[in-house]
Amino acid sequence: MSLRIYTVEVSTRERTQMVDITGEVSRIVARSGVSEGVCRLFVPHTTAGLTINENADPTVVDDILAELNKIIPFEDGYGHSEGNSAAHIKSSLTGVSLTVFVTGGRLLLGTWQGLYFCEYDGPRRRKVLVKVIEE
Amino acid sequence: MSLRIYTVEVSTRERTQMVDITGEVSRIVARSGVSEGVCRLFVPHTTAGLTINENADPTVVDDILAELNKIIPFEDGYGHSEGNSAAHIKSSLTGVSLTVFVTGGRLLLGTWQGLYFCEYDGPRRRKVLVKVIEE
Amino acid sequence: MSLRIYTVEVSTRERTQMVDITGEVSRIVARSGVSEGVCRLFVPHTTAGLTINENADPTVVDDILAELNKIIPFEDGYGHSEGNSAAHIKSSLTGVSLTVFVTGGRLLLGTWQGLYFCEYDGPRRRKVLVKVIEE
Repeated sequence: MSLRIYTVEVSTRERTQMVDITGEVSRIVARSGVSEGVCRLFVPHTTAGLTINENADPTVVDDILAELNKIIPFEDGYGHSEGNSAAHIKSSLTGVSLTVFVTGGRLLLGTWQGLYFCEYDGPRRRKVLVKVIEE
Repeated sequence: MSLRIYTVEVSTRERTQMVDITGEVSRIVARSGVSEGVCRLFVPHTTAGLTINENADPTVVDDILAELNKIIPFEDGYGHSEGNSAAHIKSSLTGVSLTVFVTGGRLLLGTWQGLYFCEYDGPRRRKVLVKVIEE
Repeated sequence: MSLRIYTVEVSTRERTQMVDITGEVSRIVARSGVSEGVCRLFVPHTTAGLTINENADPTVVDDILAELNKIIPFEDGYGHSEGNSAAHIKSSLTGVSLTVFVTGGRLLLGTWQGLYFCEYDGPRRRKVLVKVIEE
């Protein structure tokens, strides 16, 4: 694997959980030496995702997960026999990749924005791949 | 902030509203002088989003908003005390970034496609960040 | 159109259908000669989408489509007169673009991940635009 692809390891404890990875990704951006460019995140899993949302009040991500779990019930007559179809569906709704601008050597995020790994079929050990590109 | 990051200002009038920003973004692409590359959009807000959808018949985006508002009700026993949890959830579903190809100095969009800023917690003054990269 | 934008043609047979395009996109990546970089996919349609999900057990994508069709019914008092509002809404939920890392001349996907074209208003003839960039 290319030297320019970094890995963030995430260990989840709940069946569904939002893990704030902004700090770790920010450190990767700093370490990369990239000043102006872009930071790309990719989750190589099919029952997890990535999203950007508020990281000031933790009730926000609790509400996001609770509502997703209501809209896409854990059991709903699914055909897939592993019992995690709801997790696959949530993964396709939030997606498994993010692109964030880098400027002045830092992630360009809004005041309230944080980067979240979304666990939809935990607890598990997961990976987020990160690439930082000068442009 | 880098000279290569442009800002589109959007003022919304409704609680939820889709604002067609295709024209403004097209002008930024033209002004950038980029011939072959990519145009990236990013919303630095946590209660708004971006999407690509039909901009010929305005009932399409009306239907998108109405259905999102039905699937994710404004009130649904949320824990977040600011009363805009539904907006945060919608933001994570449509996402806050877009990537569009640029070719021949223009956005490469399908016949019916337009770029939309999605207001989920208006009315507000909002920003969309735009970067155009030659590649 | 730039020589560096490839087209994958997809013919769908069902009203809603997930079409695995991983093989075709992998061949485009190989043909491009790009070793380290990124592969971008874009659907120029407003009633279709793209997603990454499991391509081992076909019941997974069947469950994704069935649940999307349940959450966003084909008929739900929509205003758009063409009868395909549900397809437009699904398109905005899964999105019309994907970005995947390329390393060692190949797509960097997780063990179970495949690239899917999502038909939401078929049967139709569709296109997926693909660009592979060294970086």
